[in-house]
This record gives sequence, structure tokens and C-alpha cells, in this order.
Amino acid sequence: MKVIPNNKVIYKFKNQMNYVETILPGEKVKFETNDCWFQQITSEEQVMEEINYDILNPATGPIYVENAEPGDLLQVKIIDINVKSRGSALVVPNEGVLGDQVTKPIVRIIDIEDGHAIFHGIKLPIEPMIGVIGVAPAKADGEWATDSPWKHGGNMDTKDIKVGSTLYFPVHQKGALLALGDCHAIMGDGEICFTGLEVPAEVILEVNLIKNKAIIWPLVETKEYTMVIASGNNLERAVYEATNQAVDHLKNSLNMDWEDAYILASLSVDLKISQVVDPKMTVRAAIPKYIVPTETIINSL
Amino acid sequence: MKVIPNNKVIYKFKNQMNYVETILPGEKVKFETNDCWFQQITSEEQVMEEINYDILNPATGPIYVENAEPGDLLQVKIIDINVKSRGSALVVPNEGVLGDQVTKPIVRIIDIEDGHAIFHGIKLPIEPMIGVIGVAPAKADGEWATDSPWKHGGNMDTKDIKVGSTLYFPVHQKGALLALGDCHAIMGDGEICFTGLEVPAEVILEVNLIKNKAIIWPLVETKEYTMVIASGNNLERAVYEATNQAVDHLKNSLNMDWEDAYILASLSVDLKISQVVDPKMTVRAAIPKYIVPTETIINSL
Repeated sequence: MKVIPNNKVIYKFKNQMNYVETILPGEKVKFETNDCWFQQITSEEQVMEEINYDILNPATGPIYVENAEPGDLLQVKIIDINVKSRGSALVVPNEGVLGDQVTKPIVRIIDIEDGHAIFHGIKLPIEPMIGVIGVAPAKADGEWATDSPWKHGGNMDTKDIKVGSTLYFPVHQKGALLALGDCHAIMGDGEICFTGLEVPAEVILEVNLIKNKAIIWPLVETKEYTMVIASGNNLERAVYEATNQAVDHLKNSLNMDWEDAYILASLSVDLKISQVVDPKMTVRAAIPKYIVPTETIINSL
Repeated sequence: MKVIPNNKVIYKFKNQMNYVETILPGEKVKFETNDCWFQQITSEEQVMEEINYDILNPATGPIYVENAEPGDLLQVKIIDINVKSRGSALVVPNEGVLGDQVTKPIVRIIDIEDGHAIFHGIKLPIEPMIGVIGVAPAKADGEWATDSPWKHGGNMDTKDIKVGSTLYFPVHQKGALLALGDCHAIMGDGEICFTGLEVPAEVILEVNLIKNKAIIWPLVETKEYTMVIASGNNLERAVYEATNQAVDHLKNSLNMDWEDAYILASLSVDLKISQVVDPKMTVRAAIPKYIVPTETIINSL
């Protein structure tokens, strides 16, 4: 299995990027990822002014997927996320939902033992997830710093991007150009204080191609749902985008009038908050698989 | 068991209200509820102009709970929700997330058979919930029409207000003055198109008192979570209010610094969308019970 080392990183998802490795569709590949601080926070006495802010949010990669062409769908199965046994979480003034109440930075170094993060003696079962994962954006969409989510993916900070889930990205450039980083050992929906439990990790993916199937926003498939992941300047805008796509997916995959798909969404689709603390906010619209399987949605594209 | 009939309704949660029945703490009581249209929609050919909009969103009650005093907590266990076998769902221009795309009203009458709503041949497993439930608001909070959610409860449209859940309301008036209505047989988080599957129902509650424990926003306890239910003019405001209370509950019940409670919330509390289509939007902040039991949160108030 090819390994993409964690010193090969990008800070922007661009239309054109130099890639560091090439894989074939169907191949498994391992990414070594840095934490969002590039491992600069190692102690609870960290002086935040000493951090080099130019190297935050590195994403390992990108890799070039042979035969991927604009208009295809890149399918990314998350096989494994192996997080390091120690991570950090912190509060910073003016960051996170309640940032207005934070007077000074507080760093917490948190150990992970036997699948649990230990915080003040409380054992939190970890559920490792990938914070940043994306492909080259469409030319019309410009460049996206790795700290932001958008249609190419990026910093979606979505709990369901975890082992067992499958992502679908729109391919906008030859080779797709996949990169990822910013894993969390555990995080609640919302990422309330602006960090999860930030950890370096090794991520194993299986990457496949679905030819000539275009989507606008990324999808993540879990055991129960197909979710549209959409972002916007506020939650309302993200809700609109995610809902709009989910209703279109229901309409097309079930051959239904748009109005009936809209009603069906109201009865069965769950709007879920991913994060409210990045430069754009992220929401997912979860379509239950018992209503329509992911494969049927993909085939109807 | 006392029965509160569905012709005894209110349209506003007020500081002072005439009550229709008195119960003792610990007593079970049955409420007959109307649907949000007061059963005016019976056919898919319904002409919306013929509806009497003055009688929408009726809430059955209120009832007076003996010994309830301002500063107490009203505990409401949801024992049963028995929905009628037919309901309605509809789209209306300018209502719901995608209301800008709706050109004319469309009504769907939906049958419920063997625990499933049948929509275009798809069997949706019902999960009945109470849309509107609340108590007399604080005097400083004024009056609240039954179509709006706020600190007294009201139109919270929260899926977790279902059988097996327990609600906690702040008592602001003698007797608490509990009323409810607007049940849905099924609804997704968000209530995307602005209705769930709207049905009349019979609701059985067990009402208890917890003396001298004050909260700001209602709580709902489920199998896994204690959730703060908060509302605001937009999702961001609702997120702030719900998060602020959840962090305070963690801080007080776990004897933790506020900053550590804020970090713990980021790692473990899920922000969930309840509804985005009422006069105010509603969010719940879900504190996992494995971190702190509901009883410990209540005792720390």
C-alpha cells in the first residue's frame, strides 16, 4: 500500500496542484495526517503567541487518481483511522459558540487509553473522524484555504466522516487531487468550542471512480443514511443548500414530483449540524436508506 | 384518569390563564389534541383560502398542577401518544426551507397503517411526537402565541418529545398551567417543508413536581441524552442559548471550571436542529447521560 507522508502537505485546495503520488481506482492508500496545529501544541503551558499560524490546518497530499475526469464521482471508503494516543483541545477568546465569554486561552492535553479519551476522569469513547478532506475545486469556485469547507469538501468537520463511511466528491480536475488532514479522536456535532480532540493519525482509504455522475455538494454514506454535506456563511444558508440537494436526490431517485419530494423530506430527512465554528458553517441533510438506497441515488444522477 | 377534551383549547400561552382541570403531582392525565389545522384539512382538494386561520395551532388545556409554585420544575413523562389513522402534510408558497420554490399549495392526505405512514407506496415507520407543549410563561416574557417556541416551551417541534421521553419545564405561575397540541405522526429534524404528518391524537402524560429547582429553557430527557431545547430568531441565536445552558449544566453538575465544561461540551455535546420553519427556530444541545445522568443535572440546579 502506498503511503503519503505527513510532510507532504497543502494549505489550499486549488484548481491546479502538484500531486505527490498516483493511484489506480480500487487501490487502498495510507495518509499520514498532522493535527490542525501541525503538532505545535504539546503542553498545557503552551504560549499561543509562539505558535506559527502560517502552518495551521495542513492537509496531506494531494494524490492523483488515474482516469478521474471532470464530471466523474470520486468514491472514498474510510477503511481505518488510527489516532495517536494523545491530543489537544483548547479554548481561545472569540472562537467557538461561546467565544465572547472566554477571557484567555486554555490548553488541555488529553490522553487516549483503551479507546477512551480521559478528561477530568471521565472516559469518553473515541470515534475518530477526518476534519479536512477534499479534492480540487471547480475553476469557477477559485481556491479554498484548508480551514474552510465548500463544494470540494475541505474542512467539513463532520462526525460521520469516520471508519465505515463512504464519501462521494465531485471530480473537477483530472486525477481529482485528493488531500486530507485534521483528524479528531472525538467531537460533538457543532464542534462547540472550535476544536475537537485534535490528533495526528494514519488514515487508510479505498478510492474508486464512478464515471459520469455529477454532484454539487459532497455526500457521505453511513450505515443508515445518505447525507448531503453543504456549507454556507450561516446555518440558514447551509440548511437551504443541503435541503435543496436532498429534495432533488429524492425527486430524481424516486421519480417523484418536486413538491412530493419536498413533503417526503419534511417527514423523513434529518437536518444535522456538522460545525458552526469554521469560516463557513456546515450542515448535513440525511436521507434514510430505507427510503432510497445510496446506490439508487447515485444511479439517478 | 382525567381527560382534557379537545374543545378546551388556548391560542396563547399567557401569564394568567383559566384552567380547565386540576391534577395532583404524580397523577396521569389524558389530553385529546387537535391537529394544527383544527381538522380543517380533510381532502387533497382543500382550497386554502377557505380555511379559518384564526383557529390554527390550538393547544388543549391548560391544566392546573396542585402545589406547583414559581421556581419549581414541572416534570412531564410522556406515557403514550395515540395518533389517528389519517393525517395531512402540505407545501405552501413561501413556507418551509424551500418555500421560495413553491408556486401553489399542495395537500397530501396520508394514511397510517400498522405503524407506518404510506406515502407514494413508501412505508415510513411512524414515531409520534408532540409539536406544541408548554406552561405559563414568566411575566417578564409576555404572551406567546401557540405557534411559537420559547422558554415556556410552546411550538418546539422537537422529534424527541415522544413516548418514553421526559420533559422539564420552569414553573412561572401557580399550578404551572400545562397545555399541548399539534402532534405529528412522523417528522424529520428541521420540519423542512413546514409541516410534519399532522394528526389529531390522544396523549397520556404523568406529571410530577420537583420543588425549588429553576431552569431557563426546557429540558427533554431521552434514553441517551439530557437536551436543552432553546429557540431564537435564527439558528445561530438558538445554538448560542442551548450551548450556554448545556455548558452551565456540565459545569454545575460536574463541579468543573467553565472553560473545562466548554471543552467537554465541544468533545461530547451534539447540537441538533429541531425546526427551522416556525416564527423562531429551535435547537437542542444534547448532553450524553454517560457523562452525567439527568438526575445529577437536576440536583445541581
